[in-house]
Amino acid sequence: MGANSSDGKPAVVLLSGGLDSATVGAIARMQGFALHALTIDYGQRHRFELPAAARVAGALGVVQQQVLPIDLASLGGSALTADIAVPQGRTAAEMAEGIPVTYVPARNTIMLSLALGYAEVVAAEDIFLGVNAVDYSGYPDCRPEFIQAFERLANVATKAAVEGTARFRIHAPLIQLTKAQIIARGTELGVDYGLTHTCYAPSPAGISCGTCDACQLRQQGFAAAGQSDPLEYQQQA
Amino acid sequence: MGANSSDGKPAVVLLSGGLDSATVGAIARMQGFALHALTIDYGQRHRFELPAAARVAGALGVVQQQVLPIDLASLGGSALTADIAVPQGRTAAEMAEGIPVTYVPARNTIMLSLALGYAEVVAAEDIFLGVNAVDYSGYPDCRPEFIQAFERLANVATKAAVEGTARFRIHAPLIQLTKAQIIARGTELGVDYGLTHTCYAPSPAGISCGTCDACQLRQQGFAAAGQSDPLEYQQQA
Repeated sequence: MGANSSDGKPAVVLLSGGLDSATVGAIARMQGFALHALTIDYGQRHRFELPAAARVAGALGVVQQQVLPIDLASLGGSALTADIAVPQGRTAAEMAEGIPVTYVPARNTIMLSLALGYAEVVAAEDIFLGVNAVDYSGYPDCRPEFIQAFERLANVATKAAVEGTARFRIHAPLIQLTKAQIIARGTELGVDYGLTHTCYAPSPAGISCGTCDACQLRQQGFAAAGQSDPLEYQQQA
Repeated sequence: MGANSSDGKPAVVLLSGGLDSATVGAIARMQGFALHALTIDYGQRHRFELPAAARVAGALGVVQQQVLPIDLASLGGSALTADIAVPQGRTAAEMAEGIPVTYVPARNTIMLSLALGYAEVVAAEDIFLGVNAVDYSGYPDCRPEFIQAFERLANVATKAAVEGTARFRIHAPLIQLTKAQIIARGTELGVDYGLTHTCYAPSPAGISCGTCDACQLRQQGFAAAGQSDPLEYQQQA
């Protein structure tokens, strides 16, 4: 992707190290923003996201990447942080049923709140995140009405908005895209998906399982986009 | 305050260790809730709040107190976390002017988000916090419109609300009270304000300065309520 993008208007990008947020970073950059990447280390079991986030931040040429640890695992309640098994080998019908156990309580609310604080500090009005309402239809905080409610909140919650010096905008450019469309868009923008990490249950060496919901959605997305996934898997779905 | 209150409906109380949140905890308890206290260790310079929060939680007889560290100081931007001087000896007119440097970017948004996640985990629908729009009129996230916007957000953001098993309510019972009214209410409810900590700039031994905005508002509040403040001060305002 190349050179540093520090000469645009500042924007905060929530960068997890996954495929979606890498694509969102590339979109924000293409729009001319100077990127301030915020990576939340929330005690996720898929720790390989964190080095992936650093690799993606480097490739995006961000102004800075801030890694903020917060121990959401101590609050409990999710297979992604607590001692609850990550589901494996589920069919599309099973995945579509209700809200999955990998839901982290109030995750996107917490992450957007932190992004909002960071945006105030770096004088950014624009916050980008890679939520998606199509493949993650079970997550309440991946829906357009959630994004709209947060944007309204941001504009009453902050010094900059109240003083009239900022008008916050929450950008979720992937929200209505399928995984295949996301991959196609990122590929156009030159995203190297080999830098990203997606799996909820990787091997100790960081090799993706290939069978958890996230791996399955990723592999199906690459297939539907007619692209080959640069990652290796323990098992093909 | 006395016995354990674990037999009511669960509620989350944001407990900082200050005078306001101690009063809010007593109000929630009086309403019959079983209290789950959440204390955010956000890198505040007034670290003496943290042991104060534990003392207050004990006196309230909470079901549990969760202390969640999050390094908001790493985001920068406030005299309460960063290397910016805490103002001393300001007049009421100076305090009323604009948003103070002690404003922490998006603080109450972040804290309420964390409380919301915790509420989902402990199956609470009620969240109490001690924001106040009278003495802290300069803070955008202490206003009723902020609380309303967050409540709307909570009810689109969460699994429980979307599944129809919960309807979140954000309680800010002090929001329209003066400091004197807060102290009078807490005194009626048996709050021991000697357990609390208020000062933004205490001595290394934890003795309150008596001259920062927070100490001044506290002392004026006790005087106006006709109560004596059990804390000692380095200097009377």
